[in-house]
Parts: sequence; structure tokens; C-alpha cells
Amino acid sequence: MKKTSLLLVALFLQVGYTAQAQQEPVNLDIVNKIKKEGLENSKVMETAFYLTDVNGSRLSGSTGLARANNWTKKQLTEWGLKNARLEEWGEFGKGWEFEKSYVAITAPYYQHLIATPKAWTPGTNGLQKGEAMLVTVEKEEDLAKYKGQLKGKIVLVSNPREATTTFEADAKRYAEEDLAKIAEPPVAAPAGQNNNANSRREQYLAMMQLRTKVSDMLKAEGAAAVLSSRGGLHGTHYTSNGAPYAVDAPVALPELEMGTEDYNRLVRLLKAGQKVELELETKTKFLDSDLKGYNVLAEIPGTDRKLKDEVVLIGGHIDSWHASTGATDNAAGVAVMMEAMRILQATGIKPKRTIRIALWGAEEQGLHGSRGYVKKNLGDPATMKLTKAHEKFSAYYNLDNGTGKIRGIYTQGNEQVAPTFEAWLAPFHEMGAKTVTLKNTGGTDHLSFDAVGLPGFQFIQDEIDYDTRTHHTNQDSYDRLQADDLKQASVIVASFIYHTAMRDKKLPRKPLPAPKPAL
Amino acid sequence: MKKTSLLLVALFLQVGYTAQAQQEPVNLDIVNKIKKEGLENSKVMETAFYLTDVNGSRLSGSTGLARANNWTKKQLTEWGLKNARLEEWGEFGKGWEFEKSYVAITAPYYQHLIATPKAWTPGTNGLQKGEAMLVTVEKEEDLAKYKGQLKGKIVLVSNPREATTTFEADAKRYAEEDLAKIAEPPVAAPAGQNNNANSRREQYLAMMQLRTKVSDMLKAEGAAAVLSSRGGLHGTHYTSNGAPYAVDAPVALPELEMGTEDYNRLVRLLKAGQKVELELETKTKFLDSDLKGYNVLAEIPGTDRKLKDEVVLIGGHIDSWHASTGATDNAAGVAVMMEAMRILQATGIKPKRTIRIALWGAEEQGLHGSRGYVKKNLGDPATMKLTKAHEKFSAYYNLDNGTGKIRGIYTQGNEQVAPTFEAWLAPFHEMGAKTVTLKNTGGTDHLSFDAVGLPGFQFIQDEIDYDTRTHHTNQDSYDRLQADDLKQASVIVASFIYHTAMRDKKLPRKPLPAPKPAL
Repeated sequence: MKKTSLLLVALFLQVGYTAQAQQEPVNLDIVNKIKKEGLENSKVMETAFYLTDVNGSRLSGSTGLARANNWTKKQLTEWGLKNARLEEWGEFGKGWEFEKSYVAITAPYYQHLIATPKAWTPGTNGLQKGEAMLVTVEKEEDLAKYKGQLKGKIVLVSNPREATTTFEADAKRYAEEDLAKIAEPPVAAPAGQNNNANSRREQYLAMMQLRTKVSDMLKAEGAAAVLSSRGGLHGTHYTSNGAPYAVDAPVALPELEMGTEDYNRLVRLLKAGQKVELELETKTKFLDSDLKGYNVLAEIPGTDRKLKDEVVLIGGHIDSWHASTGATDNAAGVAVMMEAMRILQATGIKPKRTIRIALWGAEEQGLHGSRGYVKKNLGDPATMKLTKAHEKFSAYYNLDNGTGKIRGIYTQGNEQVAPTFEAWLAPFHEMGAKTVTLKNTGGTDHLSFDAVGLPGFQFIQDEIDYDTRTHHTNQDSYDRLQADDLKQASVIVASFIYHTAMRDKKLPRKPLPAPKPAL
Repeated sequence: MKKTSLLLVALFLQVGYTAQAQQEPVNLDIVNKIKKEGLENSKVMETAFYLTDVNGSRLSGSTGLARANNWTKKQLTEWGLKNARLEEWGEFGKGWEFEKSYVAITAPYYQHLIATPKAWTPGTNGLQKGEAMLVTVEKEEDLAKYKGQLKGKIVLVSNPREATTTFEADAKRYAEEDLAKIAEPPVAAPAGQNNNANSRREQYLAMMQLRTKVSDMLKAEGAAAVLSSRGGLHGTHYTSNGAPYAVDAPVALPELEMGTEDYNRLVRLLKAGQKVELELETKTKFLDSDLKGYNVLAEIPGTDRKLKDEVVLIGGHIDSWHASTGATDNAAGVAVMMEAMRILQATGIKPKRTIRIALWGAEEQGLHGSRGYVKKNLGDPATMKLTKAHEKFSAYYNLDNGTGKIRGIYTQGNEQVAPTFEAWLAPFHEMGAKTVTLKNTGGTDHLSFDAVGLPGFQFIQDEIDYDTRTHHTNQDSYDRLQADDLKQASVIVASFIYHTAMRDKKLPRKPLPAPKPAL
């Protein structure tokens, strides 16, 4: 199976890359210096420690994020980077943080539960005690039956989930056959997919409208708080926001998210007609003294007279969700990108182009930091009105898929860049990174650059336990980081940006996209 | 591999069982009735739901255990069993339960932690705030350096643990080769093992003495509370007792147990010289109005004039630890044993011998319920003074290894009984139960019977996630139960006790052991 897969990759490379025949140069002397610094003197785990354990969670608009922004700016300066700064990307909205989270069953018998207030929900104003009530609304008419019954109740609104038993490992790495599959050329979307997407979008909007009606009724009827679950097992649970962060957004009810088992227990008890009493207390705080959002930026200035105004950018988002310390999402990416800069700085490399690092804010709420940066500095995807800096921009590299080592890179359909990346990955085959795919990957900040026709890339990373344990959960903490993986990623990124900065030409681009007016 | 393993089993059976040549009868008509009732009309998950979700945790001496005792007595009566009763097994000590558990980091930044008060520790008397402090004592002289520094501190005393990433599944079932290994005859302990055991015992005693000295110092110096960890990952943590339950035991400090990641974070911060502030609140209650311990007993009376005074006993402990609802340890065993009785009752079987069910108390503190029962009713292992009932006793079957289905049975070295169990397992081979081993297994209530020379057996069960997620953890809840496994176990137990009750003779016994005076 392994041999077959490798053969497929080779075949694909031959077919796909004939357009560009010249050999992409690789400076192995520099690569070896980067490896030595990055593997023997690594500071990536120390950086991650400060971002997670010491700093804590970094929700957009929170003091946690503000502190992390200031710390990274200071750290980058201490490493000798130039012009480290916080740069406003636009208006975010209300900040929010929490200062207490407690919930327990008090009847039939005491049991403390594992839960976290949803972001941007208000606190309970002290310890509240109340009866639990299951509210099942599948259509608007279902609302009527709860009329007059919700006063002071602690309401369960989500459906129970299956609490699977994990006969498969939480964590995994890509096998050769997985990588071969990723390397396969993308296939066009089948006919009718747009119709499906539209239909799904309509269903989603209808569901959201119904949810709003449920929320309005719960508030109008005087429910005390809401409990909900979006899964997670064995003490792990997912978190998200429970209300908008817009300045003028109305205040929601206090709401806590919890894991599958605790939530299911409450549902089972209520469905069996058992009286369930709960006590809970959350303290939360809205922050409105500064409604702006920020990115952290710093540079290793270019040294070539003609090329120093051109920019190679690397980054990852520094904001996180709030239930843990956002280790794999995305202190990992931040620590690796900072470490790549540190490595280049420590090895005394003088890049031709300017290398910039950007630690984005508010990625979790919609890539706001990187979108704001692109719009302000490079071009507006709505109009495709582009700046001078757009012309001077070589490439953006992003890291935001957890703690796993780099196994390759997504070219986002940029065929011309593929042979270059192949060449740059060659010295890292022995470290497991060798896959170049024309496929797109989504979900994070490289998309902001791709949207204005600039080369924006995300690396392929081993999944480890991102989907089962860490991504947006209360268990995304330092101990989930894989030190060796982060070291490997740091040296690969350092080498990529070095070579991008030293290349004769900027990286090749895809054709400019058409303007995409905001919906 | 599988074929080789099966061959080994067959070989072993030929060598091991030649002593008893007559064919053990199996009533397949009854077996089919039992399967039908147990698989098609099962109530085992309903019973488990009442024991876990509805009842809650069942710590020895708690009101939770008292309520579960009363509920099982009532339920067994409703099913038509006779003489359901609570029977005192002896003096236990102080009861204990908790009514609040909350702990959080407040500096450097708020983070709620997952933790549970250790059993028999006092509460904090309201919300306490304090600085965290790491106390590392490897020898008695280390105590001196903390003198005068512990007042009001929240002290961390255990070592950090490795927070592994789970590239292996949490849950597993026995493969054929695992079962073949279990079926291999036991090997004698290698020479010198006793010396090793003694040396380990001495080390353990020395460690316990040092711990007591640390505890005494923490109390004397006025530490506010203790945090410790014995492992567990991703929100799962282990629990235990933090002080003795003896009536005259001195009051310890408030102490909470937590999982690996939360604990490690605190240790890392403290080792890095970071100031860590915590807030915590536990409310706990000591119960001393009834210091006795109880077992729940009920019967299907025997109907054979000569044999009805003979007893077949089945059971499992009903007490649990307190951080969750004790689903796999051991509501599972209780629900299966109750279900086996219900199945026999429902099928209208008239056993020759009396079949009794016993739900033991205080197993977790040292098999107290079953030991008390044996000493009171059957014989004293310290003197080997035996009762008349000892003579009338056929066998005891126990279930206490989690939610996994039955894969066979441990004979505890009773060679004569092996062919009987082989015959009785034959109708259940298709359901995965076929292994009979001469090996011993320990750790639970069948040992109390073995200690006075009576046939006491524990079934072999699939492990599922007992060792990784449920055993003594805060995640031992209803959702971890495997319904199909519990149904399978119920019909096998029902068939075993039916055949034990109908057999011409009581089950064969091993030679009586020598008296073992208490240390």
C-alpha cells in the first residue's frame, strides 16, 4: 500500500508540474544552520508555556488577549526583531471574560459538573438555585407549551448526543496512504452541489431563526439560565460564544456549555420524570473601554536594495477560545512562527526581502484580524481595488492546524508554485514533510490573502488529537503540545521563509479573483 | 495466531481436567429461556440508570449508599424475591459526603479547574483564596525549608505526571491471544519474590510515614488546603480518600484531587517562579448517627426438601467512590446480578438450592461488607473456625470488573471445578464466553469466600475503558455502560447460578486454607 501511494505521488508530480522546468535553488548550508538552531536551541516550548500556562486564555477582546499581544511584542523585540508593534485592524466589539464558573446537581444527590460559560453571556449575579427543565422545540408551535412554566428554571435546550466509547485512539498521524490521498489533484464539485449548499444554508438560517425565538421566549418568560452541549467526552467539552459581541447586541441569558455525559444525565433524568435541582454561578465581565481589534507585527528587515520593500509574511492567530489556554488552537502556531523568526534572527541571516510576522486577532470570530490587515494594507476583496503593497507582496504562510508536525503544504490550486515547494521540502523529507497538494484547505487566515489573489498557504499538519480533544475544547492546554513536532515545524517554516525572501522573483500568483461584494 | 492460541487452550484442558471424567449436565431448554428473557426483556440498563443517574454516587457511609441500599431492597422485593433486607456486617466508621466542589486559578488569569474533594476531608468553610505553593519532600530533612512559609497557602504535594497523548484507544476487548494467555496455567512465583514484596512493603510504609509527617506539618503550619493528583487525562481524574473514616481519626486538611493537565500547569507555573493565586470552596459533611455498615440481601428460596438449606450466592459491591456515579465500579456488577435474579424469577424456575444475592457495602475500603458477612455467617479466616452454614454453602459468584461482557471465569486454582465451568460456558461460546483459567484474580469480594476455603469466583470481563477512563474516576457514569455487554453477562450469570442450584452436589472445594491471623 505504501509503495503504491508513493508511486501515485510521483506520477502526479510529473503530470502537474511540467510548466516550470528550471530547478528551484535550495541553500543546504542555511538549511543546516536552521536545523541546528531550531532543533538544538529551541525555545518553542518556552514560548508556548508563556502563551498558555502563564498568559492563560486569549479570547478576542479580553484582557488575556491584550496581555498576550503585549508579551509577544516584547518577546519579539527582545529577540532583535524590528518595529514590533500592535496594529489596529478595525473595530471588533465588546470584550468579554469570565471570573467564575460553577455548576452542580443538588438533587437527587450532589454532583459537581464540568461546564464553562459561553462567551459573551452575562453572569448569574451570585449563586442561583433552580429546577432543571428540558425544552424541546422542533417547530415554532412547540414554544406555546412552555408558556408560563419557565420562570426561574435552568433550561436544557440541546439534544442529547451519543456518548461513544473510544475503541479508536484519540490521536493519530497521517499514514503514507493518507498523504497520498491529500496529494491527489482536487476534483471539481459535482453538479447540483450549489443547490445542495443553498438548501443547507436555508435549513441553517431557519434553524437559527427558531433558536432566536427560543432564546427570546426563555428571556421573556424569566428562565434563570441555559445549559447546552455540543459534545466532548470524559470531561472534555466544546465551547463557543453564546451571544454576539457587537456593541449593541442585546444581553442573552447566562448559558454554560458542558460535555456529553453530564448533559445526557440531566436529559435522561428529566425524560424519566425525575425532579432535578441545580445550583450554578458564573461571573462574567463585558469590556468596552477599547472596541478595536489588534494584530501583533514585527520584522526582520530586508537587506537587498531592490527587494527590501517586498514582503514575506508568516503568521497565525493569537486569539483563542476561553475554556482552556488555547494551546493547539493556536498557541502552537504562534509559538512556531515566533520560533521561525527567532531562528532566522539567531543564525544572523540577512534576507533580501523583508520578513514580517503577524499574530492575528479575532480569527475565531471570522478571520477578522487578517481580513482587516489585508483590506487596510493590500486590497479589498469586495472591490478588488489593490494597493501598491499588493504588488510588493511575495507570500503568506499560516500555521493553525494544531500541534502536529508539518507533513507538507496546500498550494490552494497554485500550480506554478508546486515545484518550488517540492524543492524546498526536499531537505525535510527525512523529517516527514514531503507532500505538496494542489488542494485547498480552509478555515483560517491564509484565506484572507487568497481572497485578493495573493499567495497564501497553510501547511499540512498531523492531526494528533485536534479533532477529538483540543480544538475549541476545555482541554486545549500545554500538555497536549508535542514538543518534537513544534520543533520540526519551526525549522521548516524558517527555511521556507528564508528561501521565499532570497528567491530571485516573488512567488508566482494565481489569476486575480473577481470582486466578491460582501453579502 | 488465533489458531495457535486455541490449540494451546485445548491442550491445557486435556492436561488439566482429567481428574473429573463425568459429563456435567447442561439444561439447554432453561438456558434458552434465560437467554430469551435476558436479551429480549432486559431491565439491566433501567436498573443501572436508577443506581447511577437517579441515585448518584454511593460512597460507604453516605446517604447516597443508604438510599441505593433501600432502593435495591425495594426493587428486589417488587420482582418477587423473598426476604429482601439490609443486614449489618459490622462497624464501618464515619460516613462522609460532599455538597460543594469548586476550585479555580485567579492569577495569572482566571481558569476553572476540574477537581473533587478527597473523601473524608473537611470543607473549606466558605470560599478561600490563597497563593499556591509547591512542597517537595523526598526525605524528612526537606520539611525544615517550608517552616514558617505555609500559613494560608494552598499546597501542591504530588509530583507532576506525564500527560501522555493517546495514540492507543482508551477502550479494548480481549483478542483470542489475550484469552489464551489468561487460560495458561498459573506459574509459581519466582524465588526471591517474597523478599521483593517485603522490600516493597517497607518502601511503602516509609513513604506513608513521610506523607503523614508532611500532612502533620501542613496542618501545624496552617496551610489552607492541599491539591494533589493521581492522574487521569482530558478532564478525567482519579479519586480516593484523603483521611481515615475511623470515628476517632483526626481531621485532615481540605484536599482536592485533580487531573494531570490542570495539576501539571500549576506545578510548571510554580517551578518557573510565577505567582499563582487560587480560590476554592468545598463543603463536606461527616455523618456519625449510624456507624454500622450494611449489605443488601434477598433470595429465591430453594424448593428441594434436602437441598433448600444449601446456598448459591451471587453478588457485587454496591458502594462506589464519590466523584461520579460509580457506573462501571460497580453499578454494572450490581445491575447484572440483580438482573440475573430477575431473569430466574421471571422464567419461573424453581431452584433446588436457595439462590441468594448480596450487594456488598464498603468494598472500596477493604472488602468490608463481604468479609463481615463471611465472618458472621460462614467462618473466620483468622481462626478457621467454621459455621454450619459453611458446610451448606455451594459457591459464590462475583462481578466487579466493569461493564465488559463475560469472556470466561477464574477458578482461583480450583482444578476440580474447571470441567463444570467448561460445560456451563458451552452454550455461551457464541456470545464470546469460553475461557476457564486456573489463575487467580484478586481485588474484590470473591476473595472473602476463598479466604475460608469456599468456592468464590470472579468472571473474566472485557476491559473496555475501565483502566483508562472509569475505574475510580470522575467519569464513571451511565454513558460508559455497554448495554449489550451487561445483557450478555446477565444471562451467563443466570445460567451459572441456575446450574449451581440444580447440581447434584455442591461445587467441589479446594483444601481448606490455614488460619491467617490478622496482622
